[in-house]
Amino acid sequence: MKTVGLVVEYNPFHNGHLYHAQKARESTGADVVIAVMSGHFLQRGEPALVNKWARTRMALQNGVDIVVELPYAFSVQKAEYFSNGAISILHGLFCESFCFGSENGHIAPFLQTLQQMKEKSHLLEPLIHQYMNKGFSFPKAQTLAREELFENKLPLDLSRPNNILGFHYIRANNTLQKPMKPLTITRQQADFHEETLGSQSIASATGIRKAIFEKQNGLSTIEQYVPAATLEVIAQYLNKYGKLHHWDLYWPLLQYRLLSSSAAELANIYDVAEGIEHRLKEASLRAQNFSEFMQSVKTKRYTWTRIQRMLVHILLHVSKEDMAAAIESVRYVRLLGMNGQGREYLNRIKKNMELPLITRAASYKEALALDVKAAEVYALGLPPHSSHSLLQSEFNEPPIILP
Amino acid sequence: MKTVGLVVEYNPFHNGHLYHAQKARESTGADVVIAVMSGHFLQRGEPALVNKWARTRMALQNGVDIVVELPYAFSVQKAEYFSNGAISILHGLFCESFCFGSENGHIAPFLQTLQQMKEKSHLLEPLIHQYMNKGFSFPKAQTLAREELFENKLPLDLSRPNNILGFHYIRANNTLQKPMKPLTITRQQADFHEETLGSQSIASATGIRKAIFEKQNGLSTIEQYVPAATLEVIAQYLNKYGKLHHWDLYWPLLQYRLLSSSAAELANIYDVAEGIEHRLKEASLRAQNFSEFMQSVKTKRYTWTRIQRMLVHILLHVSKEDMAAAIESVRYVRLLGMNGQGREYLNRIKKNMELPLITRAASYKEALALDVKAAEVYALGLPPHSSHSLLQSEFNEPPIILP
Repeated sequence: MKTVGLVVEYNPFHNGHLYHAQKARESTGADVVIAVMSGHFLQRGEPALVNKWARTRMALQNGVDIVVELPYAFSVQKAEYFSNGAISILHGLFCESFCFGSENGHIAPFLQTLQQMKEKSHLLEPLIHQYMNKGFSFPKAQTLAREELFENKLPLDLSRPNNILGFHYIRANNTLQKPMKPLTITRQQADFHEETLGSQSIASATGIRKAIFEKQNGLSTIEQYVPAATLEVIAQYLNKYGKLHHWDLYWPLLQYRLLSSSAAELANIYDVAEGIEHRLKEASLRAQNFSEFMQSVKTKRYTWTRIQRMLVHILLHVSKEDMAAAIESVRYVRLLGMNGQGREYLNRIKKNMELPLITRAASYKEALALDVKAAEVYALGLPPHSSHSLLQSEFNEPPIILP
Repeated sequence: MKTVGLVVEYNPFHNGHLYHAQKARESTGADVVIAVMSGHFLQRGEPALVNKWARTRMALQNGVDIVVELPYAFSVQKAEYFSNGAISILHGLFCESFCFGSENGHIAPFLQTLQQMKEKSHLLEPLIHQYMNKGFSFPKAQTLAREELFENKLPLDLSRPNNILGFHYIRANNTLQKPMKPLTITRQQADFHEETLGSQSIASATGIRKAIFEKQNGLSTIEQYVPAATLEVIAQYLNKYGKLHHWDLYWPLLQYRLLSSSAAELANIYDVAEGIEHRLKEASLRAQNFSEFMQSVKTKRYTWTRIQRMLVHILLHVSKEDMAAAIESVRYVRLLGMNGQGREYLNRIKKNMELPLITRAASYKEALALDVKAAEVYALGLPPHSSHSLLQSEFNEPPIILP
């Protein structure tokens, strides 16, 4: 059976994702489409709109055959670690190829860029640090260093977010003993961070989330941009838990954590650096909500998403040592869901897999400690009566199985 | 000027407290009545109904001349430490006498009991430990050990809560170089923990709080048991902040703290011992509210109040080292409020005081760290818009001054 892998967040699953999965299957002739999907907290440092089980259901009802989890240790990380984790899981599931959406849409420029940057990597790193020492954020410093070094002659525009991710997938893939075949498709119409909804059928997940939270009748506003299953799953989730997740729900917990921890304790949290802990504590005393808080802590030095990732780690109380241990111990593939085709594939490859395929969390409590904590804190954003049922689900929820 | 000291919580100030303050003044002929009052968290391991400023106002409007704070390092402690802290502060303010309510009502039995227990202390301590090793709580083991050793012939009934506190006041007082003169009055009518309101004008604070939270028209139900100022202050507080404080408000934060901390981290919190941290974590996953949680963690080994104090320390994230440092650094007297008479007295004694008299927290940030944290976490129990104004008050609130 031929298999193609996707790296996804599905927050929520929309028509662009449907197109991506279909194109990946078509252009590789794959029998099985595997998605490695972030759990409850995402790369931009945000809680997912609905939990991973609900998002798995959306994917399985829209042509994805297997959904496995990208563990917290990789999912709330900068592009490089995020990509390493995702690619290694797809590789561990014996995908022959993987397919990502990008602004560029052709694979050659990615490979050429990787080659050129390898040749000049000894010059690039010091230059990036020089720019960071001038106060630029890491992505901005990267861009400036690349401009200086390559004079804008790189074949790939690395200022575009999906080109960046794709570049890191390919870099991670190239370090494997047997690299998978990389494919890319052009992202249709919507820009990655596009916040307004147009008249087409494809919109960015960011725009869709914004509409859900800010428009009256949010769900009907997004109808044209998402498959029916997405609407249905979101409506069921709302019905069951009363809320969709966003940072505002976690603000009371984050504020409490910031005020009740010492600056030294915060400095020991993963990704917290350079004294920003004082700024965070100070701001938490005055801010009335999450967006006020973000406005008062943002700085030229860090991107918005970097700060948000930092805050997720603080919310989950993940120390530098915790994260090092977690990255070290991520030696498993956790199954979130599959259909009949997916099941057949997993049955075939299971015995050859180097990593254990986890179907029930209860048997892997220690290895999964960080993901379990993420699920618990994720649940606590909801009102007590809702969080209670969600809290129990991490250990007891079996993978979702569709025919 | 003659001065008498009281050790109080005023949660809330009721007619029994009024009687206590009047009697203390009368029987000592004091010009000045000083109350050392617990801050935001109390000896039974509970948040105070209203904050310390509101409770100070109640006291000043009912015949107390000076209110100073019993710091967190002493207020959320077993009787022994609580009493040591309170007595040393009254002594630091040059009180000639102190007066407490007790079930016994006479001072001689306290002094005689202290004497007899001193004589047999070498036998008592090992016996208490023997009973604790059989699984009894500390207070129960104390009672059993005393019964065995003194065959119920002690002149004081040490199974009564106010006799116990009084006994510890007197023991602490007797260690001073110049002990104050101890006085006790019989507590009128209401038992310490009496939970029902009778037809008299005096009821226990416990009964009054229960009525406020559980009865419709709670405030009018308590009218006959509290001075007008208490009702007024509570009504204003409700009007300003929307809620009166109780454990339920802090359950989401406590649950979050328990679930997001490792067992090892919890074991490092002050007063947490003997593996109870595992029991706490386990219960926090299943409980839907604070009382469900308490029901599932209670054990023969620990009293209810001991567990609640433990939970306050967990909520405030006070480690064993933090508490040791705090007890060591409590070298100040913090003024919460005074009237004209009180002001005159403080002006006279100020220059002779060994401890600094703090009127503004901002100048003593480090020494007050634990009390400031207590005030901040106390505020976070309220909804965000209310907590915001309360959060600012700890540093900026000047002592309350009445004519």
